[in-house]
Amino acid sequence: MIKEYIQSNQQRFLNELFDLLRIPSVSADSRNKADVRRAAEFIVQKLKDAGADSVELCETKGHPIVYGQKIIGASLPTVLVYGHYDVQPPDPLNLWTSPPFEPVIRDEKIFARGSCDDKGQVYMHIKAFEAMVKLGQLKCNIKFMIEGEEEVGSDNLGAFVKENKARLKADVILISDTSLISLDHPSITVGLRGLSYLEVEVTGPNRDLHSGVYGGAVANPINVLGKMIASLHDENGRVTIPGFYDKVVELSEADRKKLNEAPFDLGDYKKDLAIDDIRGEIGYTTLERTGIRPTLDANGIWGGYTGEGAKTVLPSKASAKISMRLVPNQDSKEVSELFTKHFLSIAPKSVKVKVTHHHGGQPAVTPTNSRAFKAASDAFVEVWGKAPIPTRDGGSIPIVSLFKKELDLDTVLMGFGLDSDAIHSPNEHYGVRNFLIGIETIVAFYKHFSKN
Amino acid sequence: MIKEYIQSNQQRFLNELFDLLRIPSVSADSRNKADVRRAAEFIVQKLKDAGADSVELCETKGHPIVYGQKIIGASLPTVLVYGHYDVQPPDPLNLWTSPPFEPVIRDEKIFARGSCDDKGQVYMHIKAFEAMVKLGQLKCNIKFMIEGEEEVGSDNLGAFVKENKARLKADVILISDTSLISLDHPSITVGLRGLSYLEVEVTGPNRDLHSGVYGGAVANPINVLGKMIASLHDENGRVTIPGFYDKVVELSEADRKKLNEAPFDLGDYKKDLAIDDIRGEIGYTTLERTGIRPTLDANGIWGGYTGEGAKTVLPSKASAKISMRLVPNQDSKEVSELFTKHFLSIAPKSVKVKVTHHHGGQPAVTPTNSRAFKAASDAFVEVWGKAPIPTRDGGSIPIVSLFKKELDLDTVLMGFGLDSDAIHSPNEHYGVRNFLIGIETIVAFYKHFSKN
Repeated sequence: MIKEYIQSNQQRFLNELFDLLRIPSVSADSRNKADVRRAAEFIVQKLKDAGADSVELCETKGHPIVYGQKIIGASLPTVLVYGHYDVQPPDPLNLWTSPPFEPVIRDEKIFARGSCDDKGQVYMHIKAFEAMVKLGQLKCNIKFMIEGEEEVGSDNLGAFVKENKARLKADVILISDTSLISLDHPSITVGLRGLSYLEVEVTGPNRDLHSGVYGGAVANPINVLGKMIASLHDENGRVTIPGFYDKVVELSEADRKKLNEAPFDLGDYKKDLAIDDIRGEIGYTTLERTGIRPTLDANGIWGGYTGEGAKTVLPSKASAKISMRLVPNQDSKEVSELFTKHFLSIAPKSVKVKVTHHHGGQPAVTPTNSRAFKAASDAFVEVWGKAPIPTRDGGSIPIVSLFKKELDLDTVLMGFGLDSDAIHSPNEHYGVRNFLIGIETIVAFYKHFSKN
Repeated sequence: MIKEYIQSNQQRFLNELFDLLRIPSVSADSRNKADVRRAAEFIVQKLKDAGADSVELCETKGHPIVYGQKIIGASLPTVLVYGHYDVQPPDPLNLWTSPPFEPVIRDEKIFARGSCDDKGQVYMHIKAFEAMVKLGQLKCNIKFMIEGEEEVGSDNLGAFVKENKARLKADVILISDTSLISLDHPSITVGLRGLSYLEVEVTGPNRDLHSGVYGGAVANPINVLGKMIASLHDENGRVTIPGFYDKVVELSEADRKKLNEAPFDLGDYKKDLAIDDIRGEIGYTTLERTGIRPTLDANGIWGGYTGEGAKTVLPSKASAKISMRLVPNQDSKEVSELFTKHFLSIAPKSVKVKVTHHHGGQPAVTPTNSRAFKAASDAFVEVWGKAPIPTRDGGSIPIVSLFKKELDLDTVLMGFGLDSDAIHSPNEHYGVRNFLIGIETIVAFYKHFSKN
């Protein structure tokens, strides 16, 4: 019955999602503020259309949060669905095959910024809810909280959660913002890395200088920054910040073995990325490096002359964005402070260094022995014909640890993306099949969760 | 008489120079192609107005070269004046106090891109020529060759010089494109560093990746590039490229001593640049580091997300512009090749590296025992009341070695800028006094040169 409903409404579902994808709700860019709001208003309307009550666009100090609910019985279990309607910036634009905010389907995939992360996955929940309401199959209470600042650190969600503890009361959080191993290997994410994100600025002379007149006598901020970034890893690929690994929980040999049982083909991995070699912390596999080990990456760097041709400048400044992925039990704030202290300490006297903190998030693990996890697992068995593999994901969803702390609620991370979906990259896409089977699996989750 | 002529025409001279400075003749930027041509046409007209014959806008494969001459007697000595009417890009625009192509005088300085390098200095020669013609004082033949590609490596000047050897026949080259120590310490540049300029591109994965999903397992091009740039200097500030120092001529202790007799105050130097410490090759003074030692600087770097806020991308590419200043007897082409070979060799297997050669130039020394040098020295004594100090400049004027090679002519580098003029930087400026006294000194040079 649900299958038929999805099938007969498939084109409308996609059309509606495309309307949402057309809104450039880039939360990081202040020029898109009105667009972000427009996306929130779109979600409000679609929740109402699907049958939600008390739908509200809740103002925050930043972008608004959309709340909506359907309470059908005080004794029934309640699921709180979290997602986000904001998206990453689309740069670099020239690498997109089709414009990021003009969704198209190619090879049965929806190409658009946010198609997978997270508009497409949020929209599955709204349509699963619609289907259950229309078919009279809803046997749980549902609450929706869809925010607009996930991609910039969910700065105002914490206050909202604290102020709305009663309204947000639930039995479990359900989030679709992660990936499956593949369509052949369904999986549920049970661990997420945290994040510390910083921006550094190295200033040498007070103005750009002629590199001929001053070169060789005055510290060059680009050379200095390059050296400072290089020094953040040792020859074994380990981060050199003192104290960085102090709180890292080492997995048991048994847990490591289990983690490495997930299907992974190094040849395919290298081929997909067109690289001749992988690179990471010595002594760990790729699955471990991205799942259970903390890492440090420069996300952006700029300084001096970057235009056409040659300019012989010794620049005044060079800057970089640097982020660290964290694992249990590292603390985002503490690691940001360790970084700052270390980075300032390694600066030569010939330059001045400024470190700015961007957003962060705590690492998290989710239980695999809960009622909700079992319902999710059963849903996969029913719809996919096989049990999901528990995996550790490299990405960060800071809200998971916030929910645990403020609402004492565990989360089920039932995501339907694929690592190859190019989220945060040009040509982000989301499989039409992932979208549709996701809706079906979510409906099955509610069925099993209400039964248990 | 010359003093009076300059004084009574001072305002017109400045007005004309301002018209030239208003033309954004940025040779590096293809969008300014028509502007560059307009600047050439301006020079053509002003040479004609000043009394030059056979003035011609000579086409090249790039920007045009302006040629003009005044031959007054086959037996008289001939001076070939070289200069350039193209300018450096004005970026970063936001750091200019007044717009780069809207010249203004503040604190008796002309602020505009090109005011010192080299439009202001070229224009001194045109006005000195005008004055001598008008006053009937011209006792030499003069030839002008003013090009439009100096800031991008004078790519087409070599061919022009080779094809016009007869036309360019002269006794000496006179160039004003360098600096004085100060208005209290007149000086003549007798050594120039050469240049090798390269662009490097490091490619990791074939697309921008999510740093959470891939971070820690895939080489990050920014981190790799930072490390590669850092490795180009050792702990003593020496360049690590094998063979880099092989052909460097070490100065005698006596020559080093003489070089270090030039007035230099480290406190003032640091204060002017707002730096707490200088940085360079161990064992050499600042004057040596910028005058007689080869150096390596990154002139620009870019990669990943450089916009507002935070984006957790592991970028596909990172790039840098890197240049080296060379000293006798390093060879620009050879050093570029040494760099390329070394840079490719230090790349880890996890990335691909591409190196592109931009323009270069040979280092040069000019004789201090020539008739022309003596005339220049005498001119300073007459106008400034003191003999000029011979100095080694850090900048590069590749044409000097080209002239020596193709025309067998020595050059006199009689520049009137100051190191603090911020050439190649925001707020480039040129002292009104430097401009006017420069004209007077040039006229005195011709007087002494024709007498000798």
